[in-house]
Amino acid sequence: MRQSARGQVEPFIVMDVMEAAAQAEASGRHIIHMEVGQPGTPAPAGARKALATALEQPLGYTVALGLPALRQGIADLYRRWYGVQLDPARVVVTPGSSGAFILAFSALFDAGDRVAMGFPGYPSYRQILRAMSLEPVGIETRPEDRYQPRPETLPDAQGLILASPGNPSGTVLRPGELQSLTQAAAARGMAVISDEIYHGLSYGDRCHTALEITDDVFVINSFSKFFSMTGWRIGWMIVPETHLRTVERLAQNMFICPPHASQVAALAALDCEEEARANLAVYAENRRLMLEGLPKAGFTRIAPPEGAFYIYADISDITDNSLEFAKEVLDRAGVAVTPGLDFDPDRGTRSLRFSYARATSDIAEGLRRLAEFMASR
Amino acid sequence: MRQSARGQVEPFIVMDVMEAAAQAEASGRHIIHMEVGQPGTPAPAGARKALATALEQPLGYTVALGLPALRQGIADLYRRWYGVQLDPARVVVTPGSSGAFILAFSALFDAGDRVAMGFPGYPSYRQILRAMSLEPVGIETRPEDRYQPRPETLPDAQGLILASPGNPSGTVLRPGELQSLTQAAAARGMAVISDEIYHGLSYGDRCHTALEITDDVFVINSFSKFFSMTGWRIGWMIVPETHLRTVERLAQNMFICPPHASQVAALAALDCEEEARANLAVYAENRRLMLEGLPKAGFTRIAPPEGAFYIYADISDITDNSLEFAKEVLDRAGVAVTPGLDFDPDRGTRSLRFSYARATSDIAEGLRRLAEFMASR
Repeated sequence: MRQSARGQVEPFIVMDVMEAAAQAEASGRHIIHMEVGQPGTPAPAGARKALATALEQPLGYTVALGLPALRQGIADLYRRWYGVQLDPARVVVTPGSSGAFILAFSALFDAGDRVAMGFPGYPSYRQILRAMSLEPVGIETRPEDRYQPRPETLPDAQGLILASPGNPSGTVLRPGELQSLTQAAAARGMAVISDEIYHGLSYGDRCHTALEITDDVFVINSFSKFFSMTGWRIGWMIVPETHLRTVERLAQNMFICPPHASQVAALAALDCEEEARANLAVYAENRRLMLEGLPKAGFTRIAPPEGAFYIYADISDITDNSLEFAKEVLDRAGVAVTPGLDFDPDRGTRSLRFSYARATSDIAEGLRRLAEFMASR
Repeated sequence: MRQSARGQVEPFIVMDVMEAAAQAEASGRHIIHMEVGQPGTPAPAGARKALATALEQPLGYTVALGLPALRQGIADLYRRWYGVQLDPARVVVTPGSSGAFILAFSALFDAGDRVAMGFPGYPSYRQILRAMSLEPVGIETRPEDRYQPRPETLPDAQGLILASPGNPSGTVLRPGELQSLTQAAAARGMAVISDEIYHGLSYGDRCHTALEITDDVFVINSFSKFFSMTGWRIGWMIVPETHLRTVERLAQNMFICPPHASQVAALAALDCEEEARANLAVYAENRRLMLEGLPKAGFTRIAPPEGAFYIYADISDITDNSLEFAKEVLDRAGVAVTPGLDFDPDRGTRSLRFSYARATSDIAEGLRRLAEFMASR
């Protein structure tokens, strides 16, 4: 049977690493997981309790944009976190941030359009764009710019994806940077999509949303990371008023509605910030250990990890084959890490991403193993 | 900000009807719902119980294609229902059948490709195709063909969507028809997608899957209808071996995984066929009442409703403006029905869809109101 050209996207390399790690575990080995980009904690207790109660009712379709109370609760979060007044009508509840990207790309771009993003960056940006007949355009970023694009490097394109905190870099855009980037994009007629999925997970200043700068932006976020609800597939998007009806029609047809059970849990999660902040304290301690242990082990060239739960390391002084090196680390040290190739098709041959989202005892043991492995090389 | 051309899809008219019905209810009126395409029953008790238990564990990402036990359980269903031996590796668990369509269209078609389907048909086929820069091509079907396409009417296109039982028609393709349609499509190089979401809901012979005829087909189904789990957004797709890796990569990037909580519930639902069959007995009684009551009320030109929970009525003897007529029925009779325009952009001005998915007492009252309304016109 026929196959499309656009369907030939690249695999998520981290998924292959997870598979290899699972096989090693199945053969009896103990593996420390520094590859996985998700918390080891469950959804907040209040979220799970709310769903347990709701299970007595039929959980049929909701309206396409999500439960009104959930949209209001998300608007309230913007006031609480950023001091931004937001009309809940502009809040679109989505099947994960993945669903939000599909809706945003459909509403903004036509086949053949070009969409720019910083490299290194989240790999699925590129692959979702390709699957929708759009052309991803990588902007090569520099360590001295904290792996974030600069206004003067914006290419000729119809769209720009910003990510703060970045994945894999963990670096955060300052308000001034958000302003100059969104202004430069607007001047070039580029639609801006701001990926803020790691907001709430920062270790210095709070993160700033693009909505503090402009309303002319698609902002994407999710309950996956700060609220520890990855598998629930529930996210959201704030859209300009001008695009609401378009996005609503697309959502009606492409998804019907976000998963109802997850919406119920997410609504209750909004009242569980305290539990989420306790998880954040664990990441903060893990980060402290990583910043101390990684350089000691020999990974010295790292981006300042201001947010999320990742550290991106330039390993060009160690290898120019991150794929092979990650395999070696898994085989010999029993630590799963992600080769940079997922995030940067060129320079990723010389970088690694370490995740510190799991338990602190795992992080300490992982660092011990990495130091031992590097000393033995 | 820029808007795409492909984002300008049509709204789901049934959603507007639901909104109008909700407004009438908010103003104190009692409305009978014959517009909604979903069961009034909750997910099977066993499914809800399994999830309640699982809520203690973290429900993180699963692998992109779904929980292995769920894929095996779905493969087992094919043996049980159809006598088809199916490698569970070919089962892709999806975020609803909606997610399955997005994956299938991405894997099979490139921008500009044409995909054919019978009119009347499920409106989101057309709109998802448009949002993905594909061209929907309607095949005008005839009442004497039970509103199903015939092999000799296939247009020049790269794909063909079959739907049995059909929505809105409720009509079922016989094995011989499935064979001649899939053969004719293959001869023309068209990829075939068989939408079998209403399987399990039939009132005469059992439904036949396209997999009884050929492996060279994408088969799409869901837990929404027979298993009464619409809001859970959990479906599946059977793909040819040749397309597995492509679909897996697309699923990894476009959805990461289907909602984990819904997968847990769906796995348990597979053991709850008895409860699902009890729901079916209610639809069967509702259908009997509808087939008796609709002609008496004056809706005499109806497609043989062999499956699903819909009756499609040609109302060209009553009006040529189904949109206005549906409004009148809602306003004056207090019954919400769906104008045919959702399903057929041309001839839908002269047709209505009645859903009989709700409680039998509602159906009886709705028929009483419809008869009274029609008598008073």
